[in-house]
Amino acid sequence: MRQPAGRSVRRSGGERKPREERWAELIDVATQVFYEKGYDGASLQDIADRLGMLKGSLYYYIQSKEDLLFDVISTVHRDGLAVVRACADRPGDALERLEGVILGHVEHTCRNLVPTAVFLHELSSLPEERSREVLGSEHAYQGVFRDLIEQAQRDGLVRPDVEPRLAALSVLGSTNWVYRWFRPGGTFPPEAIGAQFADMAIRGIATEEALAARAGRRAALTAAAGS
Amino acid sequence: MRQPAGRSVRRSGGERKPREERWAELIDVATQVFYEKGYDGASLQDIADRLGMLKGSLYYYIQSKEDLLFDVISTVHRDGLAVVRACADRPGDALERLEGVILGHVEHTCRNLVPTAVFLHELSSLPEERSREVLGSEHAYQGVFRDLIEQAQRDGLVRPDVEPRLAALSVLGSTNWVYRWFRPGGTFPPEAIGAQFADMAIRGIATEEALAARAGRRAALTAAAGS
Repeated sequence: MRQPAGRSVRRSGGERKPREERWAELIDVATQVFYEKGYDGASLQDIADRLGMLKGSLYYYIQSKEDLLFDVISTVHRDGLAVVRACADRPGDALERLEGVILGHVEHTCRNLVPTAVFLHELSSLPEERSREVLGSEHAYQGVFRDLIEQAQRDGLVRPDVEPRLAALSVLGSTNWVYRWFRPGGTFPPEAIGAQFADMAIRGIATEEALAARAGRRAALTAAAGS
Repeated sequence: MRQPAGRSVRRSGGERKPREERWAELIDVATQVFYEKGYDGASLQDIADRLGMLKGSLYYYIQSKEDLLFDVISTVHRDGLAVVRACADRPGDALERLEGVILGHVEHTCRNLVPTAVFLHELSSLPEERSREVLGSEHAYQGVFRDLIEQAQRDGLVRPDVEPRLAALSVLGSTNWVYRWFRPGGTFPPEAIGAQFADMAIRGIATEEALAARAGRRAALTAAAGS
């Protein structure tokens, strides 16, 4: 969460929590309004109306509508990046960690459908300097997938004819696309989607030896669970 | 290409070609302006200015800005659908045909980046009735992929634990996503992207027997090409 300078200082005063809650509520409402009306079509007046606030009171939190868009976009992206980086840092070989990253990314997307849609549709509404600031993170995102695929290839777990950058873009595409069709309470829960997408991705790039070792690990786990 | 009633009648008069050319130019310019400014931010004045026409002259071709958006969106979608359906109808088993569909879809997307982006970002700007008209085609699109995967599963070519709908959405996601990162003249030509994406998708869902048969066919083709 980004806040205007001097307003996010940690202290023990009684005022802090309500202000933080109000800020979180503002960001939630802005996200929803940008999603419904598009950034160009949304006004600060729309956002203030939905919060039951005077438009002028919004300037206590932000300087402009653009500040809100930047916050929505950079927050969902930074949080998602933290999720996939945490998954990438778990124990296991590079292919097992990639599987975890895919699961984590699908679940994060399913739980953040609206901010993800605003990010993907409105990034270009930010001025170049600020969109570059976010785009740095986008490349960082892609990098988490690509680095694991390159590492797995060096370790003989991914076929030598696979282009790691294309493979990363293929996996990112299938997992990002979830934001367009997933609906909470639908046929497939996020975990089931993540599991099949991860399975397809790993089979799509792995060497026969790596797939055989993976099948062996899974059989051992199943046997252990049944004993 | 959609034209107002009575203006697309085939006849041998000398006026027809210039009018069709002008219409195609109008659609190209509208696509570009919607892409650059977003549908809400784009005006008929912007489009007329770029064509060097008076805004009033646009009404010879259309009744509203919405007509232009509908045309851009439905045209790229209908053309893409024709491409994937043609690929799906070629000879071969369902998995071979799915491979062709993926190649065809990636190439179509790479060659139609701007209208694809307008379709994906602005579909929701159409009124419900018209977006439903296009959405019918979107489901038809997904159906081409899903039907082939279901057929391949019935024929024992796709693993029984694969959910055909999820597999279709995974493949559509990775191939649609190309519109966000592909740039003509970049490192990978459309054919190379399509080939790797198709290969990953087929390996991701196929049975071991189907993959062995596919490897055999490829080896035979390579041997035939070398002899």
